[in-house]
Amino acid sequence: MNSLIYAILIGVIALLYAIYLVYRVLREERGTEKMIQISEYIKEGATAYMKQQYKVILTVAAIIAVVLFILLGPRLAIAYVLGALSSTVAGFIGMYIAVNANVRTTNNAMVGGLSKALRVAFNGGAVLGFMVVGLGVLGIVALYIAFGGEPSIVSDIVGFGFGASTVALFARVGGGIYTKAADIGADLVGKVEAGIPEDDPRNPGVIADNVGDNVGDCAGMGADLFESYVGSIISAMILGAVLYKAMNWTILPVFIAGAGILASIIAALTVRVKEGGNPSTPLTLSSIIAATLTAILTLPISTSMLGFTNGFKVFIAVLAGLITGIIIGMTSDYFTNRDRLPVKKVAIMSQMGPALTILTGMSMGFLSTIIPIMAIAIAGIVAYVFGPEVYGVAMAAVGMLSITGIVVSADAYGPIVDNAAGIAEQAGLEENVRDIADRLDSAGNTMKSISKGFAIGSAALTALALLVAYIQVTGITGSLLTLLNPKVICGIFIGAALPAIFTAIVIMSVSDSAFVLIDEIRRQFREKPGILEWKETPDYGKCVSIVATHALRKLLLPGLIAIISPLLVGFILGPEALGGMLAGAIVTGLLLGLFQGNVGNTWDNAKKYIELGNLGGKGSDTHKAAVIGDTVGDPLKDSAGPSLNILIKLMTIISLVFAPLITQYYLFR
Amino acid sequence: MNSLIYAILIGVIALLYAIYLVYRVLREERGTEKMIQISEYIKEGATAYMKQQYKVILTVAAIIAVVLFILLGPRLAIAYVLGALSSTVAGFIGMYIAVNANVRTTNNAMVGGLSKALRVAFNGGAVLGFMVVGLGVLGIVALYIAFGGEPSIVSDIVGFGFGASTVALFARVGGGIYTKAADIGADLVGKVEAGIPEDDPRNPGVIADNVGDNVGDCAGMGADLFESYVGSIISAMILGAVLYKAMNWTILPVFIAGAGILASIIAALTVRVKEGGNPSTPLTLSSIIAATLTAILTLPISTSMLGFTNGFKVFIAVLAGLITGIIIGMTSDYFTNRDRLPVKKVAIMSQMGPALTILTGMSMGFLSTIIPIMAIAIAGIVAYVFGPEVYGVAMAAVGMLSITGIVVSADAYGPIVDNAAGIAEQAGLEENVRDIADRLDSAGNTMKSISKGFAIGSAALTALALLVAYIQVTGITGSLLTLLNPKVICGIFIGAALPAIFTAIVIMSVSDSAFVLIDEIRRQFREKPGILEWKETPDYGKCVSIVATHALRKLLLPGLIAIISPLLVGFILGPEALGGMLAGAIVTGLLLGLFQGNVGNTWDNAKKYIELGNLGGKGSDTHKAAVIGDTVGDPLKDSAGPSLNILIKLMTIISLVFAPLITQYYLFR
Repeated sequence: MNSLIYAILIGVIALLYAIYLVYRVLREERGTEKMIQISEYIKEGATAYMKQQYKVILTVAAIIAVVLFILLGPRLAIAYVLGALSSTVAGFIGMYIAVNANVRTTNNAMVGGLSKALRVAFNGGAVLGFMVVGLGVLGIVALYIAFGGEPSIVSDIVGFGFGASTVALFARVGGGIYTKAADIGADLVGKVEAGIPEDDPRNPGVIADNVGDNVGDCAGMGADLFESYVGSIISAMILGAVLYKAMNWTILPVFIAGAGILASIIAALTVRVKEGGNPSTPLTLSSIIAATLTAILTLPISTSMLGFTNGFKVFIAVLAGLITGIIIGMTSDYFTNRDRLPVKKVAIMSQMGPALTILTGMSMGFLSTIIPIMAIAIAGIVAYVFGPEVYGVAMAAVGMLSITGIVVSADAYGPIVDNAAGIAEQAGLEENVRDIADRLDSAGNTMKSISKGFAIGSAALTALALLVAYIQVTGITGSLLTLLNPKVICGIFIGAALPAIFTAIVIMSVSDSAFVLIDEIRRQFREKPGILEWKETPDYGKCVSIVATHALRKLLLPGLIAIISPLLVGFILGPEALGGMLAGAIVTGLLLGLFQGNVGNTWDNAKKYIELGNLGGKGSDTHKAAVIGDTVGDPLKDSAGPSLNILIKLMTIISLVFAPLITQYYLFR
Repeated sequence: MNSLIYAILIGVIALLYAIYLVYRVLREERGTEKMIQISEYIKEGATAYMKQQYKVILTVAAIIAVVLFILLGPRLAIAYVLGALSSTVAGFIGMYIAVNANVRTTNNAMVGGLSKALRVAFNGGAVLGFMVVGLGVLGIVALYIAFGGEPSIVSDIVGFGFGASTVALFARVGGGIYTKAADIGADLVGKVEAGIPEDDPRNPGVIADNVGDNVGDCAGMGADLFESYVGSIISAMILGAVLYKAMNWTILPVFIAGAGILASIIAALTVRVKEGGNPSTPLTLSSIIAATLTAILTLPISTSMLGFTNGFKVFIAVLAGLITGIIIGMTSDYFTNRDRLPVKKVAIMSQMGPALTILTGMSMGFLSTIIPIMAIAIAGIVAYVFGPEVYGVAMAAVGMLSITGIVVSADAYGPIVDNAAGIAEQAGLEENVRDIADRLDSAGNTMKSISKGFAIGSAALTALALLVAYIQVTGITGSLLTLLNPKVICGIFIGAALPAIFTAIVIMSVSDSAFVLIDEIRRQFREKPGILEWKETPDYGKCVSIVATHALRKLLLPGLIAIISPLLVGFILGPEALGGMLAGAIVTGLLLGLFQGNVGNTWDNAKKYIELGNLGGKGSDTHKAAVIGDTVGDPLKDSAGPSLNILIKLMTIISLVFAPLITQYYLFR
C-alpha cells in the first residue's frame, strides 16, 4: 500500500512535465500579425467546438452517473464522474495547447529553423500525451486508495474506465464525424463551386476544417488512448484481484504503467533533429526507445513484487505487448508510406482510372490487416502460455499501452504541424519556411498513420483484456462459454455485425453533415457577396457551430447502439451470449478498423506521391483518380475506422460494469 | 435401408427432368445465320474454357485423391473422386445447355414473344439446377449403400463433399477471376482505347467476356451450391450417426433433400409469364412456392421417421432454415433493387461525384449485412433450442438448401438471358425483340442478386453445420472449446483474417489477369490492322485461353491458403484452435461476402437506374460517377465475394476430413 506513493509520484511527475511543456510552448513568439490573426480564428473555432462538445458530454455523463448511482451504488458513480472529468480535462488542455503551438511552430520555422520548430510542435503534442497518462494513473490510484485499498474494491474502479469511454465516444465518434464533414463540405463548395484554393480565408468553412484536424487527431485520439490506457490497467487489476486476491497482483499494472511514463519522458527528451534532417526518424525512434526502457524497467519491478517466477512471466507478457505494438505500428507505416510498394502500386494503378485506385487500395487495405491480427493473436497466446495465464493477457495490453505517453505525443504533434503548414500557406510566408513546415507536416502524417494502427490494435487488445475480466467477474464457466453453445455462436454473429452497422452509420453521418455545411457556405456567399472579393469577412464561427451541432446530433444513433446492444444481448440471451458478442465485435472491429485506417492513409499518400511530380503529377488524370481515392478514404480513416476502437471498448466496459446485474437477471436461462 | 430406394428414385427423377429439359431446349430453332454464328463463337469459347479448367481440376483432384488414399484409406478417396466427378459433370452439362439456350432464347423472343422466350431460358437454367440436386442426392445415397449402409460409415462420405469443394474452388474462384478479368480487360481496350461499343464483334476480347458470364453465374454458382448442398446433407448425416447412432437419424437429411427436389420441380413448372408481364415475379415466386411445399412435405417425412416429438423438432429446424433463406434473398433484393431506396440513394449521391458513389455504396453494403447475419444467428439458435440440438442446426442448413434446385435454375437463367440480350444487340435485331431480351435480362439480374445472397448465407450455414460436425468428430469437449481457452481466441483471430487475405489476393488477381488480356488485345489490333475495319476476324479463342490460363495460375495462391491454413493451425495448435479458426473465418467470411456481393449489385443497379434516364441519364457526370462504382463493384460481387463462400466451406470440410489425424498428431498439447 505504501508503495503506491511511488505511483502517485510518477503520475505527478507526468503532470508537472506537461505543465512545464505548456510553459515552454507559450513563452515562444507568435510571429507576424497575419499569422496571429489566422491562428486566433482557429483557436476561437476550436474553443467554440470544444465547449459545445463538452457541454453535451457532461450532460450525458451526468445522466449516466445518476443511473449508475441508483443501480450500482455511489462508488461506481464517483469513479465514473472522475473518469469522465479526467478525460475532459486532458482533452481540453491538449486542445488548448495545440491551437497555441501551431502558430508558434510556424514562427519558429521562420526564425529558428527546423530543429526549433520541431521542438515546439512536439512539446505541444507532448502536453496531451503526458496529461493523458498522468491523469490516468493518478485517477486510478486515487480511487483505489479512497475506496479502502483492498483488492476487493477494484470492481468499482471500472466506473473510471466507463467514464473515459463515454467521453471517448463523443470526442472520437462525434469529433470524427465533425472533422470529415467540415473537410468535405468546405472542399466541395470552396474548391469545386467557388473555384478558390484549399485553405483560402474567403471560404467560410475553412476554419471549421482547420479546427477539425485538432478535434480528430488531438482531442479524439487523446480520449481514445486515454480509454485504452485506463481500460487495460483496470482489467489487469480486476484479474489480479479476482484470481489471486492479493495486493501486489492487483496494483502491479499501475507500476508497469508508471515505468512506461518514466520511459516515455526520457524518450520525449531524445526527440531532436538536425537542420536538413528527417523529423520522422526521431519521432519513430522515440517509441522504440520508450518501449525498450519500459521493458528494462519492468523486470525488476515485476520480480520484486511477485517473486522471480511470476515476475518473469509478467515480464514476458509485457514484452509481448510492447513488441506487438511496435509491429502493428511498423505494418501501418509500411502500407501507408510513400516510399513503399503498396502506396506506389495504388498510384501506378491509378493510371488506369479511379476504379483501379479504389480496387487496388482496397486489396492493400485488406492485406494490411493480416500481420497486426496475427501479431495480436500470437501475443495473446504467448502472454497466456508464458505469462501467468489470463492475467498475462491483460498485462500484455498494459505493456502495449505503457508507452501511451510517447505515442499520443507523436500523434498530437500531427495536427499542430498540419495547422502550422496551413498558417504558413495562408500567411504567404517565404518558400523556405513553407518547406520546413511541409517537412514537419509530412512527418506528422507518418506519425498519424502509425498511431492509427496502434490505436485500433491496442483497442482490440484492451477490449480482449476487458472481455477476460468480464468473464471472470460473471463467473461463467468455460463449458458454458463454448463454441458448442448456440448462444455463444449467436452472440458471435450478432457481435460481428455491429462494427459493420457502426461503419455504415458513421459514413452516412459524415456525408449528411457535410451537406448541412455546404448549405451554410452557399448561404453566406449568397447573402454576403463581398466575401469572394475580400470585402467582407465570412462568419467562420457559424460554420463551426453548425457542423458541430449536426455532428453531435448524428452521434446519437451509433452511441445508443454501442450502449444498448450489450445490455440487450446480456439481459435477454444471458452472459454467455454477451461474451460471444464481445468476441465477435472485437474480431470484426479490429479487421474493419485496421482496413479502414490503413486504406485511407494509403490512398492519401498515393495522392501525395503523385503530387510530388510522379506519374504525371498534379492535375493529371492519374492525380484526379488518386484524389477520388483520397476522398473515399477520408471518412474511413478519420471517422468510421477510429470509431470502431470506441465501439469495442465501450461495449466491453459496459458489459463489465453491468456484469453483476446481468448474471442475476437475464431472461433466457 | 429399403426406404433409400425412394431417395434414389427422386434423384433419378431430377436427372430425368434435367434430360427432358435438355431435349426441350435443343429442339428449339436458333434463328438467323448471324445469330447462330455469334452463338457458335460463345459456345466454342466456353467449351475451350471448360476443357482447360476441368483438365486442371481433374489433375489436382487426382493428386489429392492419391494423398487421401494413402493417409485416410480407399473409401474416402473413392467418395472424393465421385464428388469431384459429379460436380464436373453437372457444371459441364449445365454450361453446355446454357450456351445452347442463349441463342434459342433470342430466337424465341423474335418469333414467339416474351412468354416462350422466358420458358426456353428458364428451362436452360433448370438443367443445371436439377443436375446439381439429382447428382448430389444420388452420389451420397450410392456411397452410403456401397459402403455398407451403416451410420458408422458416414464419415467416409465426407470425401464426396471434399471432392465437390475442390471443383467449386476452381469453378468459383478461378471462374470468378476469369470472368471479371475478361470483362475489365475487354472494356478497357475496346471502349476506352479503340472507341468501339461494348459487345462489338471487332473486339478480340468480346467472346472471352461473353463466356465469362456463363463461367461465373452458371458453372461457378452451380459448383458453389452443389458444394453447399452436399455439405449440409453430409454434416447432418454425420451428426445423426455420431449423436444418435441410428439409421433413421442418419438418412433423414437425404429425404428432406428429396422433398425439396419434388417441391422444386413443381415450382419450376409454375414459371410462366404473360406477354407484357414482369418475368421476375414468377421467378421470385417459384422459390417461395418450393420453400412452402418443402415445409409441407417435411412434417410427415420427419415424424414418420423419428416419431412425433423429434420429427416435429426437425420440422421446426428445417422451417427455420427455409425462412432464413427467403429472408436473406429478400434482403439482397431490397438493397440491390432499382426501385428501392438504397440504389436510389447511391444514384442521387453520385451527383456529387464518384467519391460519394463509393462511400454511399459502401455504407449501404455494410448495412445490408445485418439482417442476413441476424437471421442466421436466430435460425441457429431456434434450430438448436426448438430442434434436436446441434442436429437441428445442421437440419436448418439442409432445409435452407433443400430448394437448391429452383435457386440454381433461376440463377443460371441469368447468364442465358444476358447472352441472349447480347446476341440480339450484336445481330442487330429489331427494337421489340431487344426490348423483350432486355426485360428478361433485367429479371436475370434480380435473380443473380438474390441467389448471390442465398449462396453466401447458405455457405455460412453449411460451414456452421460442418463445424458442428467437426467438433463432434474430434470429440473435443465444450470446456476446451471455450472463449477462455487462448488457443480458441487465437484461432478466431487467425480465421477472421483469412477472408480478408483471400479478398485482397482475388482482387489483385483480377486486375493482373485483365492486364494480360489487354496486352493480347493490343497485340491483335497491332498485328491485324484489318480487324477494326471489319476486314479481318479477331482470334477470339486466343483471348479466351490466355485469360483462362492466367486466371487458373492466379488461383494457386488462394487455393493453397484455403487448403493449408486449416492443416497448419490444426496440426500445430490443435483441434480447439482449428475450431476457433473456422468460427472466425465463417463470421468474417459471411460479413465480407454479403458486403461485397450486395455492394457490387447496388452499384451496378445504380448505374442502370441512371441509364434509364434518371438524374441526367447516360453520358452525364452522374452516370460517369456511377460507372466507376460499377467497375469497382464488379470484381467484388463476381470474384472476391463469391470466393469467400468457397473458402469457408473448403476449410471446414478439410478440417472434417483430417479431423481424425489432427486429434492424434497435433504439436502443442
